[in-house]
Amino acid sequence: MAPSAVPVSNEDVSHLPLKLDKQNGVKATTEDVKMEAHEKTDLVLRTFRCLIADLCHQFGCGHPGSAMGMAAIGVALWKYIMKYSPSNPDYFNRDRFVLSNGHACLFQYTFLHLTGYKMMSWEQLLTYHSPRFDSVCPGHPEIEIDGVEVTTGPLGQGIANAVGLAMASKNLGATYNRGDYEVVNNMTWCMIGDACLQEGVGMESIQLAGHWKLNNLCVMFDRNEITCDGSVDVAQSDDINMKMRACGWDVIDITDGNNDVEAIVKALVQARASKDKPTFINIRTVIGVGSRAQGDAKVHGADLGEEDIAHVKKTFGMDPSKTFVVGDEVYDYFREAIPRGQQLEKDWNATVDAYSKEYPELAAEFQKRVKGEFLADWTKLVPQTSDFPTEDTPSRKAAGQIINPIAENCGNVMVGTADLSPSVNMAWKTKVDFQNPDLTTACGLKGDYTGRYIHWGIREHAMASASNGMAAFNRGTFLPITSSFFMFYIYNAAGLRMGALQNLQTIHIATHDSIGTGEDGPTHQPIELATLYRAMPNFHYIRPCDGEEAAGAVIAALNAKDTPSMISVSRQKVPQYPGNSSREGVQKGGYVFLEEKDADVTLVGAGAEMKFAVEAREALVGKGLRARIVSLPCWRLFEKQSRAYRKEVLGTAPRIAIEAYSPTGWERYADAGYNMHTFGQSLVGKDVYERFNFNGEKIAAKAKGLIDEVKKDGIATLRGDFRDLNEYEHDVQFKAYHKH
Amino acid sequence: MAPSAVPVSNEDVSHLPLKLDKQNGVKATTEDVKMEAHEKTDLVLRTFRCLIADLCHQFGCGHPGSAMGMAAIGVALWKYIMKYSPSNPDYFNRDRFVLSNGHACLFQYTFLHLTGYKMMSWEQLLTYHSPRFDSVCPGHPEIEIDGVEVTTGPLGQGIANAVGLAMASKNLGATYNRGDYEVVNNMTWCMIGDACLQEGVGMESIQLAGHWKLNNLCVMFDRNEITCDGSVDVAQSDDINMKMRACGWDVIDITDGNNDVEAIVKALVQARASKDKPTFINIRTVIGVGSRAQGDAKVHGADLGEEDIAHVKKTFGMDPSKTFVVGDEVYDYFREAIPRGQQLEKDWNATVDAYSKEYPELAAEFQKRVKGEFLADWTKLVPQTSDFPTEDTPSRKAAGQIINPIAENCGNVMVGTADLSPSVNMAWKTKVDFQNPDLTTACGLKGDYTGRYIHWGIREHAMASASNGMAAFNRGTFLPITSSFFMFYIYNAAGLRMGALQNLQTIHIATHDSIGTGEDGPTHQPIELATLYRAMPNFHYIRPCDGEEAAGAVIAALNAKDTPSMISVSRQKVPQYPGNSSREGVQKGGYVFLEEKDADVTLVGAGAEMKFAVEAREALVGKGLRARIVSLPCWRLFEKQSRAYRKEVLGTAPRIAIEAYSPTGWERYADAGYNMHTFGQSLVGKDVYERFNFNGEKIAAKAKGLIDEVKKDGIATLRGDFRDLNEYEHDVQFKAYHKH
Repeated sequence: MAPSAVPVSNEDVSHLPLKLDKQNGVKATTEDVKMEAHEKTDLVLRTFRCLIADLCHQFGCGHPGSAMGMAAIGVALWKYIMKYSPSNPDYFNRDRFVLSNGHACLFQYTFLHLTGYKMMSWEQLLTYHSPRFDSVCPGHPEIEIDGVEVTTGPLGQGIANAVGLAMASKNLGATYNRGDYEVVNNMTWCMIGDACLQEGVGMESIQLAGHWKLNNLCVMFDRNEITCDGSVDVAQSDDINMKMRACGWDVIDITDGNNDVEAIVKALVQARASKDKPTFINIRTVIGVGSRAQGDAKVHGADLGEEDIAHVKKTFGMDPSKTFVVGDEVYDYFREAIPRGQQLEKDWNATVDAYSKEYPELAAEFQKRVKGEFLADWTKLVPQTSDFPTEDTPSRKAAGQIINPIAENCGNVMVGTADLSPSVNMAWKTKVDFQNPDLTTACGLKGDYTGRYIHWGIREHAMASASNGMAAFNRGTFLPITSSFFMFYIYNAAGLRMGALQNLQTIHIATHDSIGTGEDGPTHQPIELATLYRAMPNFHYIRPCDGEEAAGAVIAALNAKDTPSMISVSRQKVPQYPGNSSREGVQKGGYVFLEEKDADVTLVGAGAEMKFAVEAREALVGKGLRARIVSLPCWRLFEKQSRAYRKEVLGTAPRIAIEAYSPTGWERYADAGYNMHTFGQSLVGKDVYERFNFNGEKIAAKAKGLIDEVKKDGIATLRGDFRDLNEYEHDVQFKAYHKH
Repeated sequence: MAPSAVPVSNEDVSHLPLKLDKQNGVKATTEDVKMEAHEKTDLVLRTFRCLIADLCHQFGCGHPGSAMGMAAIGVALWKYIMKYSPSNPDYFNRDRFVLSNGHACLFQYTFLHLTGYKMMSWEQLLTYHSPRFDSVCPGHPEIEIDGVEVTTGPLGQGIANAVGLAMASKNLGATYNRGDYEVVNNMTWCMIGDACLQEGVGMESIQLAGHWKLNNLCVMFDRNEITCDGSVDVAQSDDINMKMRACGWDVIDITDGNNDVEAIVKALVQARASKDKPTFINIRTVIGVGSRAQGDAKVHGADLGEEDIAHVKKTFGMDPSKTFVVGDEVYDYFREAIPRGQQLEKDWNATVDAYSKEYPELAAEFQKRVKGEFLADWTKLVPQTSDFPTEDTPSRKAAGQIINPIAENCGNVMVGTADLSPSVNMAWKTKVDFQNPDLTTACGLKGDYTGRYIHWGIREHAMASASNGMAAFNRGTFLPITSSFFMFYIYNAAGLRMGALQNLQTIHIATHDSIGTGEDGPTHQPIELATLYRAMPNFHYIRPCDGEEAAGAVIAALNAKDTPSMISVSRQKVPQYPGNSSREGVQKGGYVFLEEKDADVTLVGAGAEMKFAVEAREALVGKGLRARIVSLPCWRLFEKQSRAYRKEVLGTAPRIAIEAYSPTGWERYADAGYNMHTFGQSLVGKDVYERFNFNGEKIAAKAKGLIDEVKKDGIATLRGDFRDLNEYEHDVQFKAYHKH
């Protein structure tokens, strides 16, 4: 248990399998990973740990413990193992590193500084937890920082991202590598703590990596056996290695992860050489090593304090009176990373050049991928208005009609589903599944790594978060599309949020929206979920009412290069509105669907419930009243329009929003709402609607009441007094039967 | 692979370990589990499967496949193994059964009917997927149905609920059983499909059950190897048994789960007898067995159709021209469950009576638990207004001050945290951890099954969903309280939703709310999440502004017997407002915090940002303007008040809502909002506020602009035209640096 500051052993390292095999390294040689004199490594570790302690002391807060504990792992990675280029952080074939235990961010920032990433200057490193708005040392790594591949922090996300990054490499390599030309063969290295082995999304991701045999993925487990609540055994008793093996991973144990850089390097080399499995390295470290409180939860997330920092420095043979000491030797040790990275790039460029001569067409396509361009002009693939059927059609079917040809023809699009292929209509006829090529399933499906249709299993969260990883591989190189029932996008909200935060373009086809989804019942009928995605910054929740609007939704999503979009479609057949519905209108978020001069009321419709707005309008005609209709499929896009446009669309007449969701947020656009105030019920779709009063006549009757009131009291009576018109069962959970 | 309709083997069953040991069965004898003649069992299986096919054909939809496949498991459970009482579905010490693969609901409904649950009459059974509003056969099992313990459907939830149910039994048993008196010793049986082994929440729950050594939990895995996308191996390659063993479970394999009732019974008996591990029974079945399409995904979720149903009936030796045939023999076979259940109850009552004589005080307490009563008068435990400090105090600290004594003194309260004990302040001094008593952790913690403080690990989702299970054990017997950072309640939204849907009282202490949480950065700063919980039916999201309001929030949550509540509190110190803040006001959802006659504006504040409402008011005074302040900590409670009360509180002056969250929904209560339109930033709390213009002076300046406009144009100008006053960086994700 007890850690020590003794130097790593002087054992000869020449036996290490340092020569990387061809499959795994482009012209990488033993030079890249040659061991330095151990004394120097020891100085680096001691310097690094004292620096971390100092950085957390500056503003009296931060996470020193794991950053100190993992120092030797970092040395192994940045000094010996990883392929990267500090002078070009975006070098395409670089290894990807993900810090899934993102609170240990100083670990990464410090290595980025030491290896010479310009953005991570000394001045910047000192801004950790400072009040500076322009700090690039936030409390968790953020994607905008050079050398950081993905934003991490919410636990379990990073390991899922790493799976996506490894999938991206596998797919590109399988698609473009030819013979000796390996234009993509990078590794993904992911650092985790205990949390990623506890969080569900972590376990989902681990299963998938094992299933797909992602041998280009290595997860390094910082096994310090400490979590916030104390020792990890207060909440965990698994045999973790056994579990990882059961999930199809190779497992390597490291007993002295505090000091044994050599053993770590050896394990990482073995990981890169793995032929058919992802690798899990279980590395025993001590949190806050060198501190008086080492091995205790209290070093996790707090400044060690002056006294203990002095202790750390004494332990490591440094001068306690000095702070922020990084000697030239330490810089010298790491800064060879710059020329090494430049050489890597040079070699890669040479490979790509030679490849381009031998495979010019493939290379041209590959270059488009590097630039993040679409492989075909998707704008020509979107069906025209007249291509949609005019009879009632489920909008999930329309979504398939639009997405399928794009997916088929654009090799940068990766489409997946959380085990709902028969329901979501995202599989195109000639699809190839993303699978390990050795797999033949019992049902006869095959696939390979060039495949672009992904069976995620019933793992919505990993689907979303790994898709973020694919999108982050290189901006635009992949466009991930996910699909599931809308209700189950509540399982992966944490992942979708991370996509929005990182400005990653992904598209989510959420089918079976609203109560119209029917007999599966209230567990499957989203009432409140749209509200979350409408409120989420940098996220487009788009709810088209028919095929034409679905086309608009897809166009809007494809154009939103820095924003995830969700396209929310119906299970059931919905009417089509040629002449009213407009793809251009959808791209503005909202538009006049049906104009009416001197209207008594504006009905605001969305998605599958547009049907009720249209029916209510007709019923109002019967009462001698005139209604115009506005379609508002995407609030956030609508908010991006000019104030004048929005005012014009919404008009001056009293407005009623009609949607079988919670009213929350409709208050911005309407004076009254005809919405849901309870969960739904298990009935066939049309009967659920009826059960909850979604019926043109009933809506018209309520609308008339509102119109009469306004005629009597004036429009100002509506100000600040939103009306819930569908009062039935308001705020009382309906049950046909009561046990209690 | 190929299933058959041959009867189960005639092998002698006398060797089965049918005599239940004392620890696990209250006077249960071999009578309870004695095997019937195999011919009869065979008839039952054949009848059952044909009936399922008929039920799904009535309205042309439903899920026949797994219900047919699992028939033999159901016979083993309801005929031989489970302890239940059809004439009293709520019999306290009954075994709990959870159908985690809830789409197979007909499986459960049909056994409930056959065993004589009155609610599940023949007429009712025929309502499956009918248009009848009063059907008790919804598309997934719902808690209100007699014999259904929890509502299931969203995959992975049920297994987590089952863990909670087993925890509840363990805790009650450890607390109240004495010597020979086992007043609680029921088993929890949970049926799962592949999904629960893929979904993250399932894996989290499995880890926890293994860690706690819940030997009273048995999970039966319907291993039909089919999911919607085809054979399960398209997305799964784990060695599941090995994984379960690694997680600390006993594993039993059943090779012919279609027919071998005897083997299943034997395994279930073994599960009940397990001394120190939960049991996982891996049961090989064939989905839609007997159908032409048996073993194929297409029998999962669709009517088999007339032709195939005829085939099923021929296969099973039934008359294809007849439908809905259930012979008297079949009823006779099951209906002995009624007297058996009555005897079980009688025996249990006798045990409780004898126990009451020997342990009168304990028995009195136990009876309160049975009735679902609190074990102490919590109203006396809530701190008085004067008990709170007057200096600035984090509201998470106040939450601890209020909850700790309640948790300490009320033995029905179970408090847990997702590994944030040092941050959430929910641990009271004399707490005992819920743990297997044999465990001693490396950090020296011990516990036992009487413990009421739960270390959930970093598993927010299982925490929420297993808490639902505890709450569902018997209404009121347990009050589960969870705790984590507010942001991470995005991981378990699916679980919280299920609690709201089931009217289960749970309380969720969500600390570190708003951007004020500071340096952990945008990944930890909730912006949009409150909107979800405010929009969720039957959910109280309560955001108190100080200690007094926190007391009101806890009182409101404790009084909400059929509703989950979340109490959202600050990490940072916030001012206290004695004289303004009001616990009674919180219970009404909103109230006048500071009245001002002839006010020019009403500032609506909530939570930690009340500070800015108060500061803005002061700044307005400097401009010669008068502001009143309304506190609106819980929208849903406010909506329950009379329209007159709400109008009076909100007043007639222009209203501005001030909160560092998305504005979505504030439009109902205000004419304008001072809110967030982007994600936050990693800075110390006070600096994040400043960075995003949360500052009394700046807010006052914007308020003045609005007041001036209204003075000029009249109040009607505000109607239907919500103003976002914090325009800075509106809709543009802030970044100090740009990589792309």
